[in-house]
Amino acid sequence: MYRNTTCGALRASDIGTEVTLSGWVHKVRDKGFVVWVDLRDRYGITQLVFDQDRTPVDLLDKAKELGRETVIQIKGETIERASKNPNIPTGDIEVLVQELQILNESILPPFTIEDETDGGEDIRMKYRYLDIRRNPVKDNLIFRHKVTMEVRKFLSDQGFIEVETPYLIKSTPEGARDFLVPSRMNEGQFYALPQSPQTFKQLLMVGGMDKYFQIVKCFRDEDLRADRQPEFTQIDCEMAFVEQEDILNAFEGLTRHLLKEIHGVDSGDFPRITFDEAMRRYGNDKPDIRFGMEFGELNAVSQHKDFNVFNSAELVVGIAVPGGASYTRKEIDKLIDWVKRPQVGAKGMVYVKCNEDGTYKSSVDKFYDQDDLAKWAETTGAKTGDLICVLSGNTNETRAQLSALRMELAEHLGLRKPDEFAPLWVIDFPLLELDEETGTYHAMHHPFTSPKPGQLELLETQPGEVKANAYDLVLNGNEIGGGSIRIHDKEIQATMFKHLGFTPEEAKAQFGFLMDAFQYGAPPHGGIAFGLDRLVAILGGQETIRDFIAFPKNNSGRDVMIDAPADIDDAQLKELHLKLDL
Amino acid sequence: MYRNTTCGALRASDIGTEVTLSGWVHKVRDKGFVVWVDLRDRYGITQLVFDQDRTPVDLLDKAKELGRETVIQIKGETIERASKNPNIPTGDIEVLVQELQILNESILPPFTIEDETDGGEDIRMKYRYLDIRRNPVKDNLIFRHKVTMEVRKFLSDQGFIEVETPYLIKSTPEGARDFLVPSRMNEGQFYALPQSPQTFKQLLMVGGMDKYFQIVKCFRDEDLRADRQPEFTQIDCEMAFVEQEDILNAFEGLTRHLLKEIHGVDSGDFPRITFDEAMRRYGNDKPDIRFGMEFGELNAVSQHKDFNVFNSAELVVGIAVPGGASYTRKEIDKLIDWVKRPQVGAKGMVYVKCNEDGTYKSSVDKFYDQDDLAKWAETTGAKTGDLICVLSGNTNETRAQLSALRMELAEHLGLRKPDEFAPLWVIDFPLLELDEETGTYHAMHHPFTSPKPGQLELLETQPGEVKANAYDLVLNGNEIGGGSIRIHDKEIQATMFKHLGFTPEEAKAQFGFLMDAFQYGAPPHGGIAFGLDRLVAILGGQETIRDFIAFPKNNSGRDVMIDAPADIDDAQLKELHLKLDL
Repeated sequence: MYRNTTCGALRASDIGTEVTLSGWVHKVRDKGFVVWVDLRDRYGITQLVFDQDRTPVDLLDKAKELGRETVIQIKGETIERASKNPNIPTGDIEVLVQELQILNESILPPFTIEDETDGGEDIRMKYRYLDIRRNPVKDNLIFRHKVTMEVRKFLSDQGFIEVETPYLIKSTPEGARDFLVPSRMNEGQFYALPQSPQTFKQLLMVGGMDKYFQIVKCFRDEDLRADRQPEFTQIDCEMAFVEQEDILNAFEGLTRHLLKEIHGVDSGDFPRITFDEAMRRYGNDKPDIRFGMEFGELNAVSQHKDFNVFNSAELVVGIAVPGGASYTRKEIDKLIDWVKRPQVGAKGMVYVKCNEDGTYKSSVDKFYDQDDLAKWAETTGAKTGDLICVLSGNTNETRAQLSALRMELAEHLGLRKPDEFAPLWVIDFPLLELDEETGTYHAMHHPFTSPKPGQLELLETQPGEVKANAYDLVLNGNEIGGGSIRIHDKEIQATMFKHLGFTPEEAKAQFGFLMDAFQYGAPPHGGIAFGLDRLVAILGGQETIRDFIAFPKNNSGRDVMIDAPADIDDAQLKELHLKLDL
Repeated sequence: MYRNTTCGALRASDIGTEVTLSGWVHKVRDKGFVVWVDLRDRYGITQLVFDQDRTPVDLLDKAKELGRETVIQIKGETIERASKNPNIPTGDIEVLVQELQILNESILPPFTIEDETDGGEDIRMKYRYLDIRRNPVKDNLIFRHKVTMEVRKFLSDQGFIEVETPYLIKSTPEGARDFLVPSRMNEGQFYALPQSPQTFKQLLMVGGMDKYFQIVKCFRDEDLRADRQPEFTQIDCEMAFVEQEDILNAFEGLTRHLLKEIHGVDSGDFPRITFDEAMRRYGNDKPDIRFGMEFGELNAVSQHKDFNVFNSAELVVGIAVPGGASYTRKEIDKLIDWVKRPQVGAKGMVYVKCNEDGTYKSSVDKFYDQDDLAKWAETTGAKTGDLICVLSGNTNETRAQLSALRMELAEHLGLRKPDEFAPLWVIDFPLLELDEETGTYHAMHHPFTSPKPGQLELLETQPGEVKANAYDLVLNGNEIGGGSIRIHDKEIQATMFKHLGFTPEEAKAQFGFLMDAFQYGAPPHGGIAFGLDRLVAILGGQETIRDFIAFPKNNSGRDVMIDAPADIDDAQLKELHLKLDL
């Protein structure tokens, strides 16, 4: 038996007990006549003590030789500490060691195993197994486990059944790019790894499972942006005999449960806004509503003067920055430079200081008088002491630019508090999205999303105007879930494929099984999928997902620890009936 | 709102309430003046009634037209049934329908949606979404969910953390065949899908996670035997600072918990036998101990006469078949034919009837007298009225043959009761297994399994004799889990790879990351993995796994419902830098 308790367990009440502990040598403090060793395991740190009065000399010498991260087992007596450490749960005691066994030596680790490590991102990824020993990473993984357990418990209690859907499925090349898996037994053919279990969960609804969920890996072979992973985890859910309202209620319940269980937060009813309103008020379909700074559209109060920049703009829109009137010229110039960065892309920025004395000072005083500016302040909700930032141009681009500025300023002002949680539903998404490059329409959510009742006909005439029963759940400015009511009628599904540019043959080859299934009594159904990696990160008060994943890949899709992907044997290629074509 | 209750919920206490139900038309009984419709959903069946006294005539007519599996919504009043049905929970009531809406029509299903369907295996697989509507399949999937929830709950309560390990890993071609995934971003290189998360869970132990589990899909590209799937699910577990005893206790606890929660069975301490003993007593390393019929080795009491068949045999071994003395000559001939089938491969069978009068009648009376046969009866534990079946030859083959006969007879005698559960540990497995064809040794469990302390040196001289700290958990004659204490020392791991025929370069290329990790303070660790598909099937009292998997593949690895694998676009191949080589 390697231990009878852990390094996080001993308290003052254990003083006098004989214990056996195993763990890693976290730190050695050698004062000559006394040696303290911090022994670490998953559960905590316990201080071991060796001293010349009470410890045999050979044991004391052995303790002095212990290197960091060596794995040891000790037996000893729990004693009271002379100088207690109130910062750790085991701070009242230490263990006077009687026996010490070295279980495994360690060579010098490439970075320190501390909360604040000296290791950079790359070296920590290569030695991820050492990085996981650090509390920040270890705690994130344990936190992820806790969240997924709560998700499963809640959904199961609500009658949802977790069903495993297959990983070796069929490629559907119209969406994002699939990862493919050559079949050895079916020469020249390929499986694909699922981008999501979408069609399978719909078939489970056709199969009468009624309420389905699954926490499941999904795969997308896309060029990786920062903080995207080729394999990621979804909480995938579907319900039959539901309308949008039923789904919003069910998963608002789940999210409320998580916020309550994990953070003790009572979040009440989640606000709902339409996609159109979100774009108008925040320039963004996933607005962070932990703070205000809502958009004020200024066309009506800014296009009546000789300022051509505004007069020629499709949209003039501003936000009020709390306390911004005190910004120096230099600070404001920095903001202007920021919005003009290529990543944001604004041509310039107009500003108005709302002075403490009730007057306004703007960068366009030449064109606008105090009455004009007072109306801008009114429209943007600016108060005395605020700064109004105004952008103009094409509607979509200007909204995106001002949204970026809004988030940047909020970050800067400390308004994006990681321990505050502001969920909201964004509903009534457009069914289709115009691809500006090709001039064709894509499904905004996916091809199985149902148009709003009565809007099917609009597909012919004004496809961009058709709204869907599609919704996103947004938390702190991040989309954490999205879903829709699905099509459950074969003819409507065929019409949808047609409008998305599928020939009937392509639709049949790729999704014939689903349309066939719809002929046999498919119930009305809908669902949602949450991105677990992001959900966990946000619930954990962080924005990057990588440290909530045990073994993440880098931006080239590589696992630098195991060095994958890798070359394979010629024999393996041959068995798969493949040749490299480099 | 599609419903305010389900088809399984209404009871006598609901009589008088107005309800809205949605579901599938399971059955229509049209008596002219009255029509009964069985409405079905996941939760049960509720009888709807339409009659000429209480139902408007157009509604009655509409009900008469309803086809099987049509999806409908109804509103009506819960009333008392005239003739109650005690066989279903809703049998006291029916719903007098006031409104009927057809939500989706169904064409005629290709087989009946009944517990005993008229559909064959192939058609049910093609229309799996209809098969899932049938209670036997639906209930199995719900049962699987219940088992996995209990597994997670138990392990989580014991401090195990579920950690997701990656699916896109590196190929290790020495074991079973990997499924490969070509990388687009890393030209000419491949990921592999995991055969198990073995190395990652060991790295989690190096990383200090202490107690890990995961319910996870694994993949093996093997020629499929009956009841094998290319993708299958494991309950994968690992613990640090443990000896074999700790692991057996932990997972005996899990299994006991499942038997208790699911079947109300108190299973007490699980018996343990060594691999050698299992082979000697049952001819099998996964013995079914729900019944006796243990092997009696007869060499000492059968090789002293002139019967050359036995005298030249390495092993003479028999079992006592309860009540078998009454078998007719024809029945015994059938048994002899059975053991001579090529799948079993025995050359013949000797038998002894233990007559009611205390005498023996054997097929070898020419060679053996009553005293001899009495000793055989004693050795095999045969009682008056039993039949002793004796096989002989090479030890391994004869044991396998007699084990097959033992299982066949037990099946025939009804001794393999599906509602009886007899778990047992088989321990002390050999470390290596001789490949008779190549004369080389393979790892019996896997290359990371630790030899028993002090036996490392035997590897050089008697590799076949080295025992491992490896164990299987057997339930009702099936291996449901297997594991081992792992190697945690770099040098021992290198020695093991050498004995398994790896060059140092191969070992480094494939498992260098693991051996590197062992240098940084790897704790002693070990684990186990359960085959979830089989575990669920056996707990469900069945032996085939296919109906506990929502969307299984056939024996050619095909999903016949979605028709995968399939051809892919040339453009996809080109992006992956591949050409077909057919």
